[in-house]
Amino acid sequence: MNSPHPDATQIAETVRRQDVSARSVVAAALARIAEHDQTYNCFTTVLADSALADAERIDHAIAEGKEPGALAGVPFAVKDLFDIQGVTTLAGSKINAEKSSANKDATLVTRLKQAGAVLVGALNMDEYAYGFTTENAHYGASHNPHDVSRIAGGSSGGSAAAIASGLVPITLGSDTNGSIRVPAALCGIFGLKPTYGRLPRSGAYLFSSSFDHLGPFARSTRDIATVFDVLQGYDADDPVCSQRPPQLCTPELSKGATGLRIAIADGYFAEGAEPEVFAAVEQIAKALGVSQRVTIPEAHRARAAAFVITSCEGANLHFADLKTRPQDFDPATRDRFLAGCLVPGHWYVQAQRFRRWYCDQVREIFQHVDIILAPTTPCSAPLIGQERMTVNGVEVLVRPNLGMFTQPLSFIGLPIISVPIQRSGQLPLGVQIIAASYNEALVLRVASELETRGIVAAPVPH
Amino acid sequence: MNSPHPDATQIAETVRRQDVSARSVVAAALARIAEHDQTYNCFTTVLADSALADAERIDHAIAEGKEPGALAGVPFAVKDLFDIQGVTTLAGSKINAEKSSANKDATLVTRLKQAGAVLVGALNMDEYAYGFTTENAHYGASHNPHDVSRIAGGSSGGSAAAIASGLVPITLGSDTNGSIRVPAALCGIFGLKPTYGRLPRSGAYLFSSSFDHLGPFARSTRDIATVFDVLQGYDADDPVCSQRPPQLCTPELSKGATGLRIAIADGYFAEGAEPEVFAAVEQIAKALGVSQRVTIPEAHRARAAAFVITSCEGANLHFADLKTRPQDFDPATRDRFLAGCLVPGHWYVQAQRFRRWYCDQVREIFQHVDIILAPTTPCSAPLIGQERMTVNGVEVLVRPNLGMFTQPLSFIGLPIISVPIQRSGQLPLGVQIIAASYNEALVLRVASELETRGIVAAPVPH
Repeated sequence: MNSPHPDATQIAETVRRQDVSARSVVAAALARIAEHDQTYNCFTTVLADSALADAERIDHAIAEGKEPGALAGVPFAVKDLFDIQGVTTLAGSKINAEKSSANKDATLVTRLKQAGAVLVGALNMDEYAYGFTTENAHYGASHNPHDVSRIAGGSSGGSAAAIASGLVPITLGSDTNGSIRVPAALCGIFGLKPTYGRLPRSGAYLFSSSFDHLGPFARSTRDIATVFDVLQGYDADDPVCSQRPPQLCTPELSKGATGLRIAIADGYFAEGAEPEVFAAVEQIAKALGVSQRVTIPEAHRARAAAFVITSCEGANLHFADLKTRPQDFDPATRDRFLAGCLVPGHWYVQAQRFRRWYCDQVREIFQHVDIILAPTTPCSAPLIGQERMTVNGVEVLVRPNLGMFTQPLSFIGLPIISVPIQRSGQLPLGVQIIAASYNEALVLRVASELETRGIVAAPVPH
Repeated sequence: MNSPHPDATQIAETVRRQDVSARSVVAAALARIAEHDQTYNCFTTVLADSALADAERIDHAIAEGKEPGALAGVPFAVKDLFDIQGVTTLAGSKINAEKSSANKDATLVTRLKQAGAVLVGALNMDEYAYGFTTENAHYGASHNPHDVSRIAGGSSGGSAAAIASGLVPITLGSDTNGSIRVPAALCGIFGLKPTYGRLPRSGAYLFSSSFDHLGPFARSTRDIATVFDVLQGYDADDPVCSQRPPQLCTPELSKGATGLRIAIADGYFAEGAEPEVFAAVEQIAKALGVSQRVTIPEAHRARAAAFVITSCEGANLHFADLKTRPQDFDPATRDRFLAGCLVPGHWYVQAQRFRRWYCDQVREIFQHVDIILAPTTPCSAPLIGQERMTVNGVEVLVRPNLGMFTQPLSFIGLPIISVPIQRSGQLPLGVQIIAASYNEALVLRVASELETRGIVAAPVPH
């Protein structure tokens, strides 16, 4: 392992070749967590014993000549809303800490384990996934490895910071309005939000069922593709899981961006952010030789409608606790959940009606382009505790506005990867690579091309 | 035509044989409407000129040896929420009277015309289909042909009364929470609410999209089957229209109830109504040799959830007018629409979540039975203007409670026919024959068997 933070593909190759044992890889990850996580506060649970035992089983399997899986010996961790057998799923809350432990792993956890990956723990998040900062009143803030005075982004902040800091090479998170893409961008790593319904959500604690997606974080495109391919497949336990057969992305990566019609998102996605954010998009567009622009109509209304649906569905999920024990919520989520209880139902109906219209509009755009590029966040990582920020000369609140470019896209379930732009000496920034539903392979091909050409890469924190 | 009110099948046969011209059939219907509709107040629009012209075209086609269609020369009319080219669709409102006329016929109107039926007018209803009585503040109440001091039921009251009074043999209505089945029962005729999504709704003014169904009224089972078969087929203009191929019911009728597992709905559907209502169900069960009972769980919650969804979707549809011109609504609908504007979104979310659970429960029941029998209404037709009624010794409001047995079933889109029980000298009553989704043929087979054996039939008013 010649890099300070090898990716999962490298690790699995060395383990399969028996250059290194899965046990030593996992023990090294546990040692890193023990040494550094007090700085970053990524983990809410570390599963040292079971991880070492699992690693030993992988080593035995390899020694016996058995196929150990595509992710043999790769340590991974999951946002603390995935069920882990024998562990209580906190979902970032104090309330859920009273619940009994999960009696089986979430489906995606099982699938990674079946591919030889080794679960080492659960990761910090905004309470009930309702936030973009991972400043959790109960479990503390996760720190951005590139500047520990800054947020990691959220709500999957622990998942992103654990990758950026090199604690583990693979994590899983969830994205309702941007909760994979925002922390991936602010921590300078790759984060994939697949198509809505593409990956099963069974055994994950949901937030807003209409928008909840699960997906991976990693340090390389090939890792994202490998993990996504392992995670694909129908699961009858999730009523929204697609029955489409898996479409493997790993074999597609080498095609790069060849033959793809790519455009830059104009209008809403080209306004209201720091100039460096648009410069990042332009840098990628230039590398790809792209000058075409497309306008996604009414994106600001899509964001408003996403807020309405999220608040009604979130309020519905937590209504019993909001009535009886509001004091036990994180104040940052409680007040928004309470406000959500008062949103009229006809707004919800209108938001869902608009969603169908908007979905049709965007589908039409994808008749003419294959890929759309847009910023991930309006700025780089704000400071921990920072309430307001100045974006392009206008003062706005940090918490709701970090998702301004992600929210109108998860609203209709498009597959998107946030890629980390290379820019030395500055805080990380991400760019969203967006395709029509079920075209994960296309976004990964473009990400791979950019990575091969050195335009995007996960920077190593100093 | 040897009956005072021949059914559509009889009429089409005589027209096809040229025993009588389509023109004379339609002229006779127009004459009946001109003479009697001042008594019943079924029609909001009568299309005498275009109807006679259409009838003449049918006669010419027959004279030329062309195939005139299964409903050749049959007069029909539609609830005034179906678009009719050149006519303003009122939907029972004063507000919509200001709108321009429709530029084409609703899909189902087109399909009936293509089968040779002749459109003679539009029919009265509760404002915006929100009611079970057809006591319309703008256009007056429709009168029950069996006792003109009584309501016809609603919201498709004009559609039911026009059949029962013999003005026309075929009408179309809509059913959101019971608006086909309730007036069919109170007027003593057959009314079919097909499976949700089975018939296209394009060109019909909706009320609550999650529950809105369109369907036919008639004097015989064979007419219902013939019309339903003509109406079936995918229509891309309705996003909820099923792409399943049509399943013709007419050839199935002769199979009767043979081989079908039939049960009586117990629990909620066996309580809270007048004894004569349950006697009607028992009369049908006895004729079919049925004693098995099944309990649909939580039907009272299904009704509550249907109220929540209806009120949110109705409020959404009319919100702009409710804000700017509430005084132009029918007071009977306005206050409920306004209340609907205040229903919280998380109730709507909860109602839709419950709906999925309930749908699964009922699907499970249909693994063990093919047909369920239940009352249509809790009593026979109340008086026009009557606000309260005593049902089984308990005083309740008329308007919301006429749909107590229909609402929990349309909630999950099951196909249902309401059949008129034979009971001389008394006001009509209906029984619901219910099947699993897409099994219209089964409910029609049972209705046909009961009709053949003289248990059900549309009584002729005195």
